[in-house]
Amino acid sequence: MPPQQPTITSTTDLPTTSAKWLSLHQIAYTDQTGRARLWESTSRKTRSASGIDVVAMGTILLHPSRPPSTILVLQYRPPVDATTVEWPAGLINPGETPEEAAVRELREETGYEGRVVETSPVLAFDPGMTSANLKVVMVEVRVGEEGEGMPEQRLEEGEYIQRVVVPLGELYERLVEYSRREKVVVSAKLWHWAAGLEFARRWGGGWGEGAGL
Amino acid sequence: MPPQQPTITSTTDLPTTSAKWLSLHQIAYTDQTGRARLWESTSRKTRSASGIDVVAMGTILLHPSRPPSTILVLQYRPPVDATTVEWPAGLINPGETPEEAAVRELREETGYEGRVVETSPVLAFDPGMTSANLKVVMVEVRVGEEGEGMPEQRLEEGEYIQRVVVPLGELYERLVEYSRREKVVVSAKLWHWAAGLEFARRWGGGWGEGAGL
Repeated sequence: MPPQQPTITSTTDLPTTSAKWLSLHQIAYTDQTGRARLWESTSRKTRSASGIDVVAMGTILLHPSRPPSTILVLQYRPPVDATTVEWPAGLINPGETPEEAAVRELREETGYEGRVVETSPVLAFDPGMTSANLKVVMVEVRVGEEGEGMPEQRLEEGEYIQRVVVPLGELYERLVEYSRREKVVVSAKLWHWAAGLEFARRWGGGWGEGAGL
Repeated sequence: MPPQQPTITSTTDLPTTSAKWLSLHQIAYTDQTGRARLWESTSRKTRSASGIDVVAMGTILLHPSRPPSTILVLQYRPPVDATTVEWPAGLINPGETPEEAAVRELREETGYEGRVVETSPVLAFDPGMTSANLKVVMVEVRVGEEGEGMPEQRLEEGEYIQRVVVPLGELYERLVEYSRREKVVVSAKLWHWAAGLEFARRWGGGWGEGAGL
């Protein structure tokens, strides 16, 4: 049976005590002047012992005769009721380091074997409304001339993840194109990385020279 | 009185019906195979008529004799119980376009007058757990030789926002440095932009040439 477009049938309020994954709470705090204040916030209930919720993989795919590329994943995400365009990401299992989780999740979601190049500091998703945080692990994937087709994914039951390989030099424009499609949303993080790369490309050496690089 | 470090005094579960800003809910949906599934999600209750929650300002500060820089804001954020390092951002008022909100929020948070250069598509903050979205408005700020000091902020009561001007060529390293400090967290979006810029710098023309640029 060909896959169909997922549809939301209902959305209902969820008390934090009944939720498995997320929570909503009120924080009481004392501000810089000693005044008592309130703030609303959400959290993930699944945070790993490392204190980190999510690991995302910034993938650089190197092929002997093709331009350096990145591996994106497309999947339906109920919170935005749309197909999202993102770097692969996942939760960290108990006992795993972010780097181990990165290599495992990359293998599961995309089938590719990667080598960790660099790990970011702990970063905040949207610190005005959530404690959710992540580390970004930059992962290099090397494929040979013979590696034409994509490797096999190891998806969990109920996961439908499409992989797309995009040359870095086309990434920004491709994200703009994806955003024009009906019910497709690009991840803010991925867009920022592509926009930083694009900024450097457009300014050429200009900003770098001025900055003494 | 010198400002003191804010402290959290309590965190309590909040029912969605009592929350003013945020909500927690359960989404029932039909997946790609026609199977009924559940997903937990959060939302902002303040979404503007434009369908966008937040506008963030990617600032490029141009000075006649100094390197191109960006304006960052540092402020205490209760959800992460830390000082965050971010681009300025804010909610969109009723009747405002994202571009109008960007110029207004930049003026309020930093005192600088900006000119909109480009607006991103609608982007998803963390689409696995929230419907929260944003547009990034790239804003150019031009100051003259005489503009040595920073302009006056127009903060709301209870807002304490510190501004920092960082040359683009030093941005990535400065974010790494900030992350090493106690109780300081860098925004994932800002880090991604800086990392994209840094990636271009480290690879030189290498990735660009390979990509046919």
